[in-house]
Amino acid sequence: MTITITAFESSPDGGKGLARDMRIRWALEEVGLPYEIRLLSFRAMKEPAHLARHPFGQIPTYEEDGLTLFESGAILFHIAQHHAGLLPDDADARARAITWLFAALNTVEPPIVELEQAPYAEGDRPWHKERLPLMRDRVRTRLDQLSSHLGDGEWLDGAAFSAGDLMMVLVLRRLEGSGLLEEYPDLSAYVARGEARPAYQRAYADQLAVFKAAAD
Amino acid sequence: MTITITAFESSPDGGKGLARDMRIRWALEEVGLPYEIRLLSFRAMKEPAHLARHPFGQIPTYEEDGLTLFESGAILFHIAQHHAGLLPDDADARARAITWLFAALNTVEPPIVELEQAPYAEGDRPWHKERLPLMRDRVRTRLDQLSSHLGDGEWLDGAAFSAGDLMMVLVLRRLEGSGLLEEYPDLSAYVARGEARPAYQRAYADQLAVFKAAAD
Repeated sequence: MTITITAFESSPDGGKGLARDMRIRWALEEVGLPYEIRLLSFRAMKEPAHLARHPFGQIPTYEEDGLTLFESGAILFHIAQHHAGLLPDDADARARAITWLFAALNTVEPPIVELEQAPYAEGDRPWHKERLPLMRDRVRTRLDQLSSHLGDGEWLDGAAFSAGDLMMVLVLRRLEGSGLLEEYPDLSAYVARGEARPAYQRAYADQLAVFKAAAD
Repeated sequence: MTITITAFESSPDGGKGLARDMRIRWALEEVGLPYEIRLLSFRAMKEPAHLARHPFGQIPTYEEDGLTLFESGAILFHIAQHHAGLLPDDADARARAITWLFAALNTVEPPIVELEQAPYAEGDRPWHKERLPLMRDRVRTRLDQLSSHLGDGEWLDGAAFSAGDLMMVLVLRRLEGSGLLEEYPDLSAYVARGEARPAYQRAYADQLAVFKAAAD
């Protein structure tokens, strides 16, 4: 089986692990599957060849023996379902881990992406600065709740790392530079635990290498 | 097995199928499972008893013999995985249907919810009216892409209705009143096909009945 994923030829974050292919790289490293990368320019992402793989013209996509998938959450779930290491065996614990995968993407990420994208989308508008505190408070609401849930737990559903944690750690990493994560020492430590995993570090190094190669 | 889900005691939309318990009601009707409803006030949603079920203090939650789940996407997936009728048997088609479930929630819904929530969250701010066209264009970008994908197809991945369609139809329904869906006759027809399903209609009637009972 050959796995091919797509990623930015020129990553907006300079290869610091924030682009969504990192979600798939990390997952594949956790389960020990090799993969190939196809790099795409922003222009190529909107061309018919890529739109046939991804109707919304984004990265990552995932190809494996005739199956093509898009949406990082769906790809991560697909990998986790077919290979040991990202979902518990117990049926109830498995359902709870999948719940955290959806929670990371649907409840925690949207206000974070709104805050992250606003400078690009509305940075030149007269209201931009005045809206920032509103957006930051929306993020804090979610971080307060997440922190209350996590308590002194190691991972979101107890002692076992899962696909839900992988996604949540990467979603929280998008706050880098905002100063918001630093308001929550427990969540900062949680993210650090994720980043300390060898699979994360291999994935991060591989993503950064693309940027370094492009910069040479 | 007794299934209990939570829903708004007093739904902000007046029971018109926009609250997220509709996603679970419809799914349970599609697979033919009976369920009970526990209605919650906005205050009860933020109290410890409910936060133990749902760390973000929202609805719906799902309880079944000792298992508690939250996140409508995760609950829908759980139902679809264990009961026939919402996911194809073929492994590749199943992975694609799950991809559409994630796409509905992560790529299509965020700009729609932003537009829907703005009047409540920022309606009293001086910039609100001027931001509306920006938000509407963000939604149009997604609808353009979705419409290009759908073409003259019946459902998102061909001829079989799936959990991905169920979620997408309900996400698109959130555009009600915005006039945006009406700009896309193919997407309007797609939503109408979803609404025409007997399971949808039973779920809708049951959700509306809660509102009518509360209004009496």
